[in-house]
Amino acid sequence: MGEVAFYKDRFVGIEENVVPIQERGHQFGDGVYEVIRVYGGEPFLMEEHFDRLERSAAAIDLRLPYRREKLKAIVKEALERSEIKEAEIYFQITRGISPRQHHYPECDAVFALTVRQAKTLDSIKREEGVPVTIAEDDRWLNCYIKSLNLLPNVMAKQKAMAKGCAEAIYQRDGIITEGSSSNAFAVKDGVIYTHPATRGILHGITRATVIELAKEMDIAVKEEKFDTEFFLNADEVFFTSTSVEVMPVSEADGTRFPETRPVTLKLSDAFKKLYIKGQ
Amino acid sequence: MGEVAFYKDRFVGIEENVVPIQERGHQFGDGVYEVIRVYGGEPFLMEEHFDRLERSAAAIDLRLPYRREKLKAIVKEALERSEIKEAEIYFQITRGISPRQHHYPECDAVFALTVRQAKTLDSIKREEGVPVTIAEDDRWLNCYIKSLNLLPNVMAKQKAMAKGCAEAIYQRDGIITEGSSSNAFAVKDGVIYTHPATRGILHGITRATVIELAKEMDIAVKEEKFDTEFFLNADEVFFTSTSVEVMPVSEADGTRFPETRPVTLKLSDAFKKLYIKGQ
Repeated sequence: MGEVAFYKDRFVGIEENVVPIQERGHQFGDGVYEVIRVYGGEPFLMEEHFDRLERSAAAIDLRLPYRREKLKAIVKEALERSEIKEAEIYFQITRGISPRQHHYPECDAVFALTVRQAKTLDSIKREEGVPVTIAEDDRWLNCYIKSLNLLPNVMAKQKAMAKGCAEAIYQRDGIITEGSSSNAFAVKDGVIYTHPATRGILHGITRATVIELAKEMDIAVKEEKFDTEFFLNADEVFFTSTSVEVMPVSEADGTRFPETRPVTLKLSDAFKKLYIKGQ
Repeated sequence: MGEVAFYKDRFVGIEENVVPIQERGHQFGDGVYEVIRVYGGEPFLMEEHFDRLERSAAAIDLRLPYRREKLKAIVKEALERSEIKEAEIYFQITRGISPRQHHYPECDAVFALTVRQAKTLDSIKREEGVPVTIAEDDRWLNCYIKSLNLLPNVMAKQKAMAKGCAEAIYQRDGIITEGSSSNAFAVKDGVIYTHPATRGILHGITRATVIELAKEMDIAVKEEKFDTEFFLNADEVFFTSTSVEVMPVSEADGTRFPETRPVTLKLSDAFKKLYIKGQ
């Protein structure tokens, strides 16, 4: 059937005008969101995404418009209607519709959702890795909240792409934090390093899954801060997200990483098995 | 006639559903905005607001959908249609409508506007001052861009109001930066202090106007960083914005400021004369 969308209380056209100007998402970015990947018709790690949604919502004092079961039912119905097997389900919850004022208005939160075909991951890129650029982390201090305030991320991603890079990897005060829409990892002497899950980074679902997989495979993981020099001198570098899974990095601002990436490859394969097993 | 709204290329109902889900404002806060006060039917300092709009748009690589003259014509027509004499004109420009992706899509920017009755300023508060609270400045590092990424401001304002305060005054690393929707000033020994117009604060139109007025009245102004202790020990404290003009502060988290405020009063009166003269 194709792309499907839902807004507030009904299924709508994905291009339909359904939002009024004075929606809190539209005027303040006052809301939170999630992206769930669907493999072979099955939403992957859905409970984990809803757990995070609830944490993000609580962090901004947002009451969900529906209970989780109802939200999940909408997600599933949307997916069925779409008939898309390899899909990306995006949904956001905003504080609602109300005449513009900064403080929280008395209104009901609004749920919006789209189901679209997932982008096909380029198998050559996946093999050879992608270039990244280092960018200053100029974002707010609560990046653990998956909020709609994404302008800095948008700008960092655009600058990366203008340089022919697939991702911008942030550094703050010389410490690598994460990517503009991903979590960043470095491997050195067989140990995986990634920024600890503080308020300063998104607590990625793929990040947590990869850490778990590594531990199961007896690969040491250190959730510790490391600086940009350490990152550039790593044996392997990769980034993770719901959309790109485990993506190897070929170079960062001209610094090339080794072409053999045993740890990245192991993790990437193990990750794939999770959703192939699920099918 | 009452409230008026405009979206993209036409006048619309202020509560009308005119925005699709996949508008960059709605999903990323990817846009900039301005608020213009109208006194006695006359937009106040309109050129200054358009100057800043253009600076904000340029800072995020956003091309305005119309030239300034056309935007001004829409603003004026909207104001006429509203027949509101004491109005607040809000407008925002977002990067446009496109399937969700982080980097800039190829699409036209979208202009949205509302005209509403301005809130009446409580004359007692204006006389007695309002309480404020100090909050940690957790925002991104480009607050000079008047962007739609306002979630931290929204949350700070909400926390202030929950404490019975009218505004949250931000401190970053112990330095007072500005308010959640205003610029902050302290007066000590007859000298006015305010944070310099760096990337870290909004370059308020009212802020600039007040500085100019002070200079005309031979009151010294120092655009210098000062810390929270200095702020709390000031002889007078006030904040400024398009909506509140020059607002005296009575206390900050329990620290009371002196009840006589000669400098604040002079500035407040001089500011009023600007728009009364204009009528």
